[in-house]
Amino acid sequence: MPKMKAAIFAEKGRIVLDDKPIPDVGPLDALIRITTTTICGTDVHILKGEYPVERGLTIGHEPVGVIEKLGASVTGYTEGQRVIAGAITPSGHSYACLCGCSSQDGPGTKHGFKAMGGWKFGNTIDGCQAEYVLVKDALANLSPIPEGLTDEQVLMCPDIMSTGFSGAERGGVKIGDTVVVFALGPIGLCAVAGAKLMGASSIIGVDTVPERLKVAKALGADHVVDFKAGDPVEQIMALTDGRGADVAIEALGTQGTFASALKVLRPGGTLSSLGVYSSDLGIPLGAFAAGLGDLTIVSTLCPGGKERMRRLMNIVSSGRIDLKPLVTHRFKLDDIEKAYDLFSNQRDGVLKVAITP
Amino acid sequence: MPKMKAAIFAEKGRIVLDDKPIPDVGPLDALIRITTTTICGTDVHILKGEYPVERGLTIGHEPVGVIEKLGASVTGYTEGQRVIAGAITPSGHSYACLCGCSSQDGPGTKHGFKAMGGWKFGNTIDGCQAEYVLVKDALANLSPIPEGLTDEQVLMCPDIMSTGFSGAERGGVKIGDTVVVFALGPIGLCAVAGAKLMGASSIIGVDTVPERLKVAKALGADHVVDFKAGDPVEQIMALTDGRGADVAIEALGTQGTFASALKVLRPGGTLSSLGVYSSDLGIPLGAFAAGLGDLTIVSTLCPGGKERMRRLMNIVSSGRIDLKPLVTHRFKLDDIEKAYDLFSNQRDGVLKVAITP
Amino acid sequence: MPKMKAAIFAEKGRIVLDDKPIPDVGPLDALIRITTTTICGTDVHILKGEYPVERGLTIGHEPVGVIEKLGASVTGYTEGQRVIAGAITPSGHSYACLCGCSSQDGPGTKHGFKAMGGWKFGNTIDGCQAEYVLVKDALANLSPIPEGLTDEQVLMCPDIMSTGFSGAERGGVKIGDTVVVFALGPIGLCAVAGAKLMGASSIIGVDTVPERLKVAKALGADHVVDFKAGDPVEQIMALTDGRGADVAIEALGTQGTFASALKVLRPGGTLSSLGVYSSDLGIPLGAFAAGLGDLTIVSTLCPGGKERMRRLMNIVSSGRIDLKPLVTHRFKLDDIEKAYDLFSNQRDGVLKVAITP
Amino acid sequence: MPKMKAAIFAEKGRIVLDDKPIPDVGPLDALIRITTTTICGTDVHILKGEYPVERGLTIGHEPVGVIEKLGASVTGYTEGQRVIAGAITPSGHSYACLCGCSSQDGPGTKHGFKAMGGWKFGNTIDGCQAEYVLVKDALANLSPIPEGLTDEQVLMCPDIMSTGFSGAERGGVKIGDTVVVFALGPIGLCAVAGAKLMGASSIIGVDTVPERLKVAKALGADHVVDFKAGDPVEQIMALTDGRGADVAIEALGTQGTFASALKVLRPGGTLSSLGVYSSDLGIPLGAFAAGLGDLTIVSTLCPGGKERMRRLMNIVSSGRIDLKPLVTHRFKLDDIEKAYDLFSNQRDGVLKVAITP
Repeated sequence: MPKMKAAIFAEKGRIVLDDKPIPDVGPLDALIRITTTTICGTDVHILKGEYPVERGLTIGHEPVGVIEKLGASVTGYTEGQRVIAGAITPSGHSYACLCGCSSQDGPGTKHGFKAMGGWKFGNTIDGCQAEYVLVKDALANLSPIPEGLTDEQVLMCPDIMSTGFSGAERGGVKIGDTVVVFALGPIGLCAVAGAKLMGASSIIGVDTVPERLKVAKALGADHVVDFKAGDPVEQIMALTDGRGADVAIEALGTQGTFASALKVLRPGGTLSSLGVYSSDLGIPLGAFAAGLGDLTIVSTLCPGGKERMRRLMNIVSSGRIDLKPLVTHRFKLDDIEKAYDLFSNQRDGVLKVAITP
Repeated sequence: MPKMKAAIFAEKGRIVLDDKPIPDVGPLDALIRITTTTICGTDVHILKGEYPVERGLTIGHEPVGVIEKLGASVTGYTEGQRVIAGAITPSGHSYACLCGCSSQDGPGTKHGFKAMGGWKFGNTIDGCQAEYVLVKDALANLSPIPEGLTDEQVLMCPDIMSTGFSGAERGGVKIGDTVVVFALGPIGLCAVAGAKLMGASSIIGVDTVPERLKVAKALGADHVVDFKAGDPVEQIMALTDGRGADVAIEALGTQGTFASALKVLRPGGTLSSLGVYSSDLGIPLGAFAAGLGDLTIVSTLCPGGKERMRRLMNIVSSGRIDLKPLVTHRFKLDDIEKAYDLFSNQRDGVLKVAITP
Repeated sequence: MPKMKAAIFAEKGRIVLDDKPIPDVGPLDALIRITTTTICGTDVHILKGEYPVERGLTIGHEPVGVIEKLGASVTGYTEGQRVIAGAITPSGHSYACLCGCSSQDGPGTKHGFKAMGGWKFGNTIDGCQAEYVLVKDALANLSPIPEGLTDEQVLMCPDIMSTGFSGAERGGVKIGDTVVVFALGPIGLCAVAGAKLMGASSIIGVDTVPERLKVAKALGADHVVDFKAGDPVEQIMALTDGRGADVAIEALGTQGTFASALKVLRPGGTLSSLGVYSSDLGIPLGAFAAGLGDLTIVSTLCPGGKERMRRLMNIVSSGRIDLKPLVTHRFKLDDIEKAYDLFSNQRDGVLKVAITP
Repeated sequence: MPKMKAAIFAEKGRIVLDDKPIPDVGPLDALIRITTTTICGTDVHILKGEYPVERGLTIGHEPVGVIEKLGASVTGYTEGQRVIAGAITPSGHSYACLCGCSSQDGPGTKHGFKAMGGWKFGNTIDGCQAEYVLVKDALANLSPIPEGLTDEQVLMCPDIMSTGFSGAERGGVKIGDTVVVFALGPIGLCAVAGAKLMGASSIIGVDTVPERLKVAKALGADHVVDFKAGDPVEQIMALTDGRGADVAIEALGTQGTFASALKVLRPGGTLSSLGVYSSDLGIPLGAFAAGLGDLTIVSTLCPGGKERMRRLMNIVSSGRIDLKPLVTHRFKLDDIEKAYDLFSNQRDGVLKVAITP
């Protein structure tokens, strides 16, 4: 049985490169030879044991590669074709998918819903920090890379860009809106780009790391707020002349950013939450206007599926947005443990790393 | 200066009937002679000093009456015409109104938004538990009562019906949805009716008072859950065969009902919050799927304005819904203190009282 | 090779019962033994040669039956289970499906869209006026019948009810709307029921056949207009006191009903078109307000897929709507030619027929 | 009685400068001293007698100016403040306004709706090609110009930009959409800009005038199609590799562009119509998929009101879009007849003119 290299979760604190068999290809599957992938903040949660996965699971959910082998029922593609798949790989046929909620896909569950069920790679099945990855429900998930785009240009599509943009989309950003984005890691930076793409006229980014504030400006932030330079809520209220934001996007996953996002909303505004939280959240009574403020809070898991990927890659093709500045470091798959070390410690101004087998 | 009787907030614990001058009518106002009004749960909060209003303010925000006098610029109505006005009386011309958020109307504020600003009667201006009430921005707010409807038939329109229905509307109830309503006071009962009106195929009402459970069934609940008979979340999950609800409506304003509403949602579901809360709220991590459940939380303040009232009265006219069972007791304005005593202590199976000057 | 009886399109004017092989079951298919089906107006178009299909094709797209055999990859169902499938059977994985447009499903086409591509049964593949039907993409389409429902109770779900309701849904009917439905055949009658289910406060049905007007009233029409008793537009404007309708649903497919639907709209209203047209349509300049009326025209093909069917059957279960009056005649499959004769000539007050093998 | 100069409709073919009294200011009005205005294509229709207005009416609906005098009830503004008002000036209080349809405002009509009723300036009341204009319902319509913006920078906001953007907004443009804009006059050019602002990844502009194609590219068109270089539908289908557009915007008002817009749509797409038509329109059967294509056609009248204007001016402030290239010629009010001559004959590459009293 042929083998491949794969970064697996060994135990809390250790993701290691190991040999695993190259997977068999079922009738609805596709085997992808990975040409580029990356590490996500969620992978770091897995590394630290904060998000539980099985030992031995291959980590990674951001695949860029080439079709190595197609299942018997998978038509419309050719082997050798360059493709990506989203971090979330919906089946297309669960009740969740058919009611427009494909990230909560539960094809094998009783009612067809499963919280976060669409997130399979590196969570419930082997992921793509490896030489090969098996894509289930390939017909719904393989998305050909448009001619002329490099691997790195589409590397953000599977997760970072899809998630970040969804912060703006689910927030319902409209032409002329004021939008605040809390935390300017890769997701928050893409939320800034998404808000700009949807017509916000004033975008305020909040962080403290100078590189991030700089990239935020390059991606569309009109103003940046350093939360260490004073209460960010006060700074934002000053910047908006006391009006507050139409939409506030939370891109970190803490009580502080969540509460601040609520506090900067104008009455009738929307808090769009992207962060992964690790404890109960509190809603401050005043910011919630005692329940009478016509406020909306939405949470979103990265949208996936081939149509989503097609659209995101077209945005890249169009030149509307240039996410190249997000890839700050490059590693060989053989050196992925070093990449985890750098990324999980957020050293050297790292935003995203590119991993190439 | 002619006088009228009015129920005013005297001090914490005391709403009393007093004499006040009949208000002058400005160019954009209308003076309404009240023929029927009612007491709201919010008025009880005011009585108890839990919601602050100025001493001497006339309480009440659910007016049914007759136009006594029209301001000079108010055309399209005739004196003597029977009308209602909503509990919320938007100006129509603030930035909030013009961006579809008229309950957060702030016509006199810097940016045109004010949290709860559309709620004026018995809050920031004199209300309608009186012989007369002055309606500001009359052109946007006076809504003629269709022929053939009695005062009591439209008495729920200004607040209870508008608020309750909005729980279903803002929850985005769709044909075939499963909807749970937590707390079956008058608002929750109207949320049940609203969910039915919008095509929910399964409506579950939660309370413990037998009369309320009974009225809920009459208004459209397919199932009722007595929260004293066992954990309501477990009962609802059993009733939905483990699937959970598409929409959960909170109609009380407590941490318990809020958290339960979140817990019974399917992934991708919506919590529609109507309650008035009196302390910070907690979002349980698991029910929130750590922020990755594609969940939505919306809060709503009673929609007002004459178009809203017109639609609600037409629903009454059409016979779609019969809210008569909600009016359980009747008092003269002279006896309003007795009415407060009964209603604030929720004695004698009271749901709503009708007050007639 | 085992044989079955099937109603096939022989040539223009002739749909005949014939013997055909029982289909083989591929890995993603399910073979359904039909227990009840019906004839649609579209089938009559096929019979008359007005809508082209291949000679020898089995007609029919409204299957109620029992799972006879499941494909190797179809899990979550059991043979012997009672199920329906929608008239439209989306794949779940085309670009069209993944962008929420599953009736225009084109899984095998270059871009994943195909106009009307989701309509396969009795159009591009063999249909269900037969002893057996093969359901492709079974995972996305088989919908178990809730306990306690008879075949006839769910017989309208695959097409008539789904299409009719979609007229109201795509029209965006809101609480308190005035809705007009033009033509009260089975689809129009279900549009009436759908408008009521979504909270319209005034529903006006237009037809001339007394039985249809009567059933319309039973299903929720507040008013009926006999278009032979005078210009229907004038009658409707009189009934709405000159205001016009918020939503007008066209359920026939003629220039006359289309233009009338546009003419009865208030400014800003929506024409929701369900009819199948056979020639170019004209938009009258005045009714279209020269393009400045903020009007919306939507056309809809019957929504399908198992989630849609689940919801519709739940509506039936809930008792919200009783469509039994729509089934006016019953035939054995052996007598389907007689059924076509009756139905295509609209004799004997026929609305829908039930066909049982 | 003090006099002012105003461009009035004298008779078919003649708009002339005349003396008129400066209007009196009612309690809800504001008198604006015009500092810059422009001529719209609609004004040319008036000039040619194609759109009827009363003789003697002052023409023009795009005012930029300074508050000269405020009515007694108009608070929140100061005399001397620089403001604009939209071409459409909703009252804020009609039933139409209160149900979100403010361009069809009919405050004085029986039911509160009037087709195009929000368009008052230069249509039903005196317009702004004059030294002064009276703004009715000033509280809903006066919008202060942000600091740092010149008159010319905001001159497109009242109509061109609001209308053009609304083509994209009402078309529901989403991130990654392909959008086609038919006709690249000022409105079509702003539709291109609006589509880009909302995240379209591919925008195709159709016209034949080289200057317009060039400006379209500057404003965001990825491709331009010269309709004289071949059938535009074929060219667009080739550019989209046979897929067609998600949204097609019609910005001219002819049968040809309307039909072409429908023909280039993918199944499930949206035709967003901005043009003013002068005769009945035809819907081709094939392009309409016989009524089964899940297509949407929306028509839109320029959104107005101060919140709309605020948002548009903020877009200008943000530097997202630079519409300066649209103002190609400048005239004094005294020379407005020359301006009409140039503009109505579309000489000298004119796009828009600026008129300054």
